[in-house]
Amino acid sequence: MSPITIDNIIQASERIQVHRTPVQTCTTMNDLASEPDAPVELFFKCELLQKTGSFKFRGASNAVALLSDQEAANGVVTHSSGNHAQALALAARNRGIPAYIVMPTTTPDIKKAAVLGFGANIIECQPIQAVREKTAEEVRSKTNATLIHPFNNPNVIAGQGTIALELLSQVKDLDAILIPVGGGGMLTGMSIAAKALKPGIKVFAAEPAAVDDTYRSFIEKRRATNEVAKSVADGLLTNLGDIAFSEIHKNVDGVFIVSEEEIIHAMELVWGRMKLCIEASAAVGVAVALYNKEFKEIVKKEGIKRIGVVLCGGNVDLVKATELFQKYRE
Amino acid sequence: MSPITIDNIIQASERIQVHRTPVQTCTTMNDLASEPDAPVELFFKCELLQKTGSFKFRGASNAVALLSDQEAANGVVTHSSGNHAQALALAARNRGIPAYIVMPTTTPDIKKAAVLGFGANIIECQPIQAVREKTAEEVRSKTNATLIHPFNNPNVIAGQGTIALELLSQVKDLDAILIPVGGGGMLTGMSIAAKALKPGIKVFAAEPAAVDDTYRSFIEKRRATNEVAKSVADGLLTNLGDIAFSEIHKNVDGVFIVSEEEIIHAMELVWGRMKLCIEASAAVGVAVALYNKEFKEIVKKEGIKRIGVVLCGGNVDLVKATELFQKYRE
Repeated sequence: MSPITIDNIIQASERIQVHRTPVQTCTTMNDLASEPDAPVELFFKCELLQKTGSFKFRGASNAVALLSDQEAANGVVTHSSGNHAQALALAARNRGIPAYIVMPTTTPDIKKAAVLGFGANIIECQPIQAVREKTAEEVRSKTNATLIHPFNNPNVIAGQGTIALELLSQVKDLDAILIPVGGGGMLTGMSIAAKALKPGIKVFAAEPAAVDDTYRSFIEKRRATNEVAKSVADGLLTNLGDIAFSEIHKNVDGVFIVSEEEIIHAMELVWGRMKLCIEASAAVGVAVALYNKEFKEIVKKEGIKRIGVVLCGGNVDLVKATELFQKYRE
Repeated sequence: MSPITIDNIIQASERIQVHRTPVQTCTTMNDLASEPDAPVELFFKCELLQKTGSFKFRGASNAVALLSDQEAANGVVTHSSGNHAQALALAARNRGIPAYIVMPTTTPDIKKAAVLGFGANIIECQPIQAVREKTAEEVRSKTNATLIHPFNNPNVIAGQGTIALELLSQVKDLDAILIPVGGGGMLTGMSIAAKALKPGIKVFAAEPAAVDDTYRSFIEKRRATNEVAKSVADGLLTNLGDIAFSEIHKNVDGVFIVSEEEIIHAMELVWGRMKLCIEASAAVGVAVALYNKEFKEIVKKEGIKRIGVVLCGGNVDLVKATELFQKYRE
């Protein structure tokens, strides 16, 4: 049986205090995603406009809310230099409890400042996965804080699933949803929710080709990992989590990959035409809708017309982003 | 009597087919706008997410819809290199009629491409105001197309007023609205609608100090004009229109000005913290809320707590915008 049920997700949606993010449409993007014999409409779920700038605040809020008062009093700990760090820091502050965030010494100052701005404590360590985990464990054992994993945690996954509840209530008759995948928390939560509410809906994952462990895991039906984790979509570098791996075969209908160039082109289009400053990770689903031939064939074959696309975050260096746009125009 | 009534605006809202744009909030922006003894909440009306990337589509749609079939058959003409050009081009295409857009030869290719993309005809002329007007008149006389002025037109103003109808239905108990002013179409329409629906609401205009004709016109109660029209807020360079000048003393409670530096800082904050790619003109109201001391004093004195701020457009060169951010960080 799945460790996360639709009831967990519905309860999470009643529990957490988050922005009900808008859904945007754009005729230009529809035109680009459509083929002459397969017109589609895209519905963009704007989680970049969520508190802390990404969907991660949903899962962190749910996990923090489900702590007992006794557990909560000792605070929460995680290791992350990304969106989960900010999300957990704010969720902890909102409950009035301490947050301990283990960050590599290489973390940009702007990301540290965001976490400090939410009142969290930063513990720096070497930028090595094993050291990060060991440091988090040391903090946990010293403080008795509860470790909140960014994606391999049922309560976090249930929180991320609330995106699908909202999206399906905001847009009627969706045929499919495209969801970026890194550790798979959002994909797992959203796919459980979507299939429970609308069994006929197709759920597709979108992944950078440069870190295609989910694509390979899905096809080969065994755990694949990335040897090198390097992509402009820096929120999706991690390997699929254990819970996600055991769940995706039940609820996910396909995984599609896109190149770095496609991700950056899709990102610039969303900035320029939709006026939304998405981060590269959020462009991965868009890039699949616009450029992936395999995906377009399935859209045509299955008669898919209305597609939800999750714009999962907007935490990005503005200057570096436009430098990338320029570089890839050449 | 006013040439535009609340009934005109309500009818416009039933007539035009536009995005009901979302209203966003942001705790960081509230904190920046608040003083210790005067906490405020800002509600951002996201007209940058309107079709064609700006509020101008509302007014253009209303004006085009109100043409008789006979008038419509001859098409519409205007001179504009900015947001009104795109808005009128799409409004005309949606009715299936020709649009003739007079643009200076200096107009960037990207703006021409947008207008051509909506199927309009471009007529190029010298970048001199008198030549632009003369060329538009020649096109009008040759084609019998109807001239649709970007702001000094009652039907355009009624269309822009629909922003206020939506905003007041989306946010309860607003105490004030901050509206950027160039030609004054949006200010006039929104102020008529807001005061009709909620007589106690305060309506404030926001203007770049570099082109402060409205500020001076309002204080001196006679027409002031800008000798030099140069500001990063390139949508607000024009002098106040005749209709706007005759209306603002009835419905506008104050005009506030901000420096170029304040506009750019506000713009970067909205991009970075709210993830919305606004153009500089849309940052002018934000800059007043964040930085204008006179405004903050009135907020405190009047007990203003909940302020609507119009983010009027997002048509901006992404690379040039982030170059500006960098320049003004130094």
